[in-house]
Amino acid sequence: MPRQPTLVGNTVLLVIDIQASAFMDTKMGIPVMPGYRENMERALKVIAAARAVDMPTVFVQEIHRRDNIDYGRELDGAEGIHCREDHPGTALPAEITGQRPEDYFVPKRRYSAFFGTDLEILLKGLKAQTLILIGGMTDVCVHYTFVDGHQHDYFCRVVGDSVGGTSPQAHEASLAAMEYLQTGAVIDTEAVIAQIHALQEAA
Amino acid sequence: MPRQPTLVGNTVLLVIDIQASAFMDTKMGIPVMPGYRENMERALKVIAAARAVDMPTVFVQEIHRRDNIDYGRELDGAEGIHCREDHPGTALPAEITGQRPEDYFVPKRRYSAFFGTDLEILLKGLKAQTLILIGGMTDVCVHYTFVDGHQHDYFCRVVGDSVGGTSPQAHEASLAAMEYLQTGAVIDTEAVIAQIHALQEAA
Amino acid sequence: MPRQPTLVGNTVLLVIDIQASAFMDTKMGIPVMPGYRENMERALKVIAAARAVDMPTVFVQEIHRRDNIDYGRELDGAEGIHCREDHPGTALPAEITGQRPEDYFVPKRRYSAFFGTDLEILLKGLKAQTLILIGGMTDVCVHYTFVDGHQHDYFCRVVGDSVGGTSPQAHEASLAAMEYLQTGAVIDTEAVIAQIHALQEAA
Amino acid sequence: MPRQPTLVGNTVLLVIDIQASAFMDTKMGIPVMPGYRENMERALKVIAAARAVDMPTVFVQEIHRRDNIDYGRELDGAEGIHCREDHPGTALPAEITGQRPEDYFVPKRRYSAFFGTDLEILLKGLKAQTLILIGGMTDVCVHYTFVDGHQHDYFCRVVGDSVGGTSPQAHEASLAAMEYLQTGAVIDTEAVIAQIHALQEAA
Repeated sequence: MPRQPTLVGNTVLLVIDIQASAFMDTKMGIPVMPGYRENMERALKVIAAARAVDMPTVFVQEIHRRDNIDYGRELDGAEGIHCREDHPGTALPAEITGQRPEDYFVPKRRYSAFFGTDLEILLKGLKAQTLILIGGMTDVCVHYTFVDGHQHDYFCRVVGDSVGGTSPQAHEASLAAMEYLQTGAVIDTEAVIAQIHALQEAA
Repeated sequence: MPRQPTLVGNTVLLVIDIQASAFMDTKMGIPVMPGYRENMERALKVIAAARAVDMPTVFVQEIHRRDNIDYGRELDGAEGIHCREDHPGTALPAEITGQRPEDYFVPKRRYSAFFGTDLEILLKGLKAQTLILIGGMTDVCVHYTFVDGHQHDYFCRVVGDSVGGTSPQAHEASLAAMEYLQTGAVIDTEAVIAQIHALQEAA
Repeated sequence: MPRQPTLVGNTVLLVIDIQASAFMDTKMGIPVMPGYRENMERALKVIAAARAVDMPTVFVQEIHRRDNIDYGRELDGAEGIHCREDHPGTALPAEITGQRPEDYFVPKRRYSAFFGTDLEILLKGLKAQTLILIGGMTDVCVHYTFVDGHQHDYFCRVVGDSVGGTSPQAHEASLAAMEYLQTGAVIDTEAVIAQIHALQEAA
Repeated sequence: MPRQPTLVGNTVLLVIDIQASAFMDTKMGIPVMPGYRENMERALKVIAAARAVDMPTVFVQEIHRRDNIDYGRELDGAEGIHCREDHPGTALPAEITGQRPEDYFVPKRRYSAFFGTDLEILLKGLKAQTLILIGGMTDVCVHYTFVDGHQHDYFCRVVGDSVGGTSPQAHEASLAAMEYLQTGAVIDTEAVIAQIHALQEAA
């Protein structure tokens, strides 16, 4: 049984690393699970629902400098050079996601969207209490952003079929890990859209 | 193939949340997998090996204030009240682990040992490059400390049979996730002890 | 003209580095201005006033490990070895300050009480909006804690005659710098006590 | 007597908030001392010297979103709306400073260039040990960036006549405060340029 309602207080949508590469056939230095692109397309529906209720939306972008100075230890594992500023796949595809100038934009160098960014400054400004996470990768940037959101005391929700992982196993394991942290955190696209619409009716 | 040697530069042992409860039959508000206690006993061998080469050793303790003010969202999920300062299981059992006054001690309020602690200050003082992680829980404090160590540019190693998780599935999934971040990160007790001994011979 | 009321929302008293040395005639590795001890004695009145309205009170302690590993660059300037855990002057003098077990305690290794500590975790737990600062040194730990409190979006107040600096000039300059950040931030002991009493009457 | 050499190990130049407004006659919401513009023009010589030895140079920019969401408490004091993304004075004037695409760029929302930015990630990537600070304001962004650099264990140097404050008094007081933290930290333009040139001869 969830111990908390799904959406508590001011809610912010975090669109994590939905970059041009998600809709391209090129490799991006990161393994992806089957169905990844479909999940990213489904995520667009969550963005559209957030629009309808004027929910603040933050577009997060993993981006690395072209001299490779800021990868840290990110090339010691399964990932190769990825999300470099000079790669076409790194851009945020506003024409697909519907990103607008009045949306918030947070570039990042590490997996967690809180690490070395102004996200916490922005969320305090928005008096945010709940975060909805969509995008990728479920088991890397989404998972570790969720953990930091959790550690910063936010109610965190992740849309299970609007996030995609590096493999089906890793995707499922990370969803389970997030559910471990906050019971009821994993919610599907249809259900979260219904919750978002209900905000409007309540207002 | 690992892309890096196992122990690079100054190496520090992080003993994560090996608290009295690990050796007691009482519940501690956190689920544990079968074999948890055996893994914690095996971890003591890694501590002993570190002693033999004077490797700096940091004892990390999850501890919460008795008025429950600092749990944040930690009670919204699978865990109940845990590691409170007035619970007997919360203490660090020096008589079992061999902790000495000259070892380092870092208390923490969140899962990551980097979050809201002086760990990064200490590691900079030690000019640490590699961290060896033992203790629990594999899929919570160990995993998220590894992630933050990774994000802070440390070479991170986790001793697979000297850490214990909340379930066998969660334990295995988190080991796989850490291996994803740094290939060769997961190492077993026997192998890491051999590597630690080799440091002495090299010195 | 102040742009904000003095005490906004939940208010927390931060007692910064009022350590035994403040009431001793020994040197503590840090220069002190004339009248320092008198200001620390005046600060005790603020603590007493906070008691009367059950205002959460945080006792902050600068403390360094005895192997000197965590001084960072703190010995490159005007200060010598200071606040080491094995120095009698480092202790918090509960018998003088009236510190109780139910008060909060935050040890720190750096000048800012936010740096490498759990202070932000605690303040979020307390849903704090305003911080009142007393203690020392005005131009080091008090000033830089104020700055971090400011950067973390807290309303910050400093009690001008209940803080003491390393010199009269440095003390005055830091008070002016804090007033620059938040107009009305510098308040004297009598006035802040009146504001604290008014909280009780309002409740 | 300085306890350390001026430039220790890898040195990085931090150009703090030298924005278009420094060279314009418009107001920017922040008070400036007489001679501010001259000091900013002098700072350009330090940038040129760094070029000659290929010293990594980081251009820091204070910039706020146009909906004012991220000012935090910055409007409670002496400053009005400042450095907003839609103000002409906020831009970095590459045509004046000689900023090149291969230089590093770090935008920030708060006074310290470490707060809510990727500066620490970048400095770790560069294996930086010493920071040279130029720009403005001496008593706000420069001072508080110095303090955080100090707390992060960097050797910090500030070029006294290549930084400018909100008033002559505040400028001088902050230089004294930085010198308190690291003896020898305050250096003049001519001397730091000589030190930078000496790096080249040593190489």
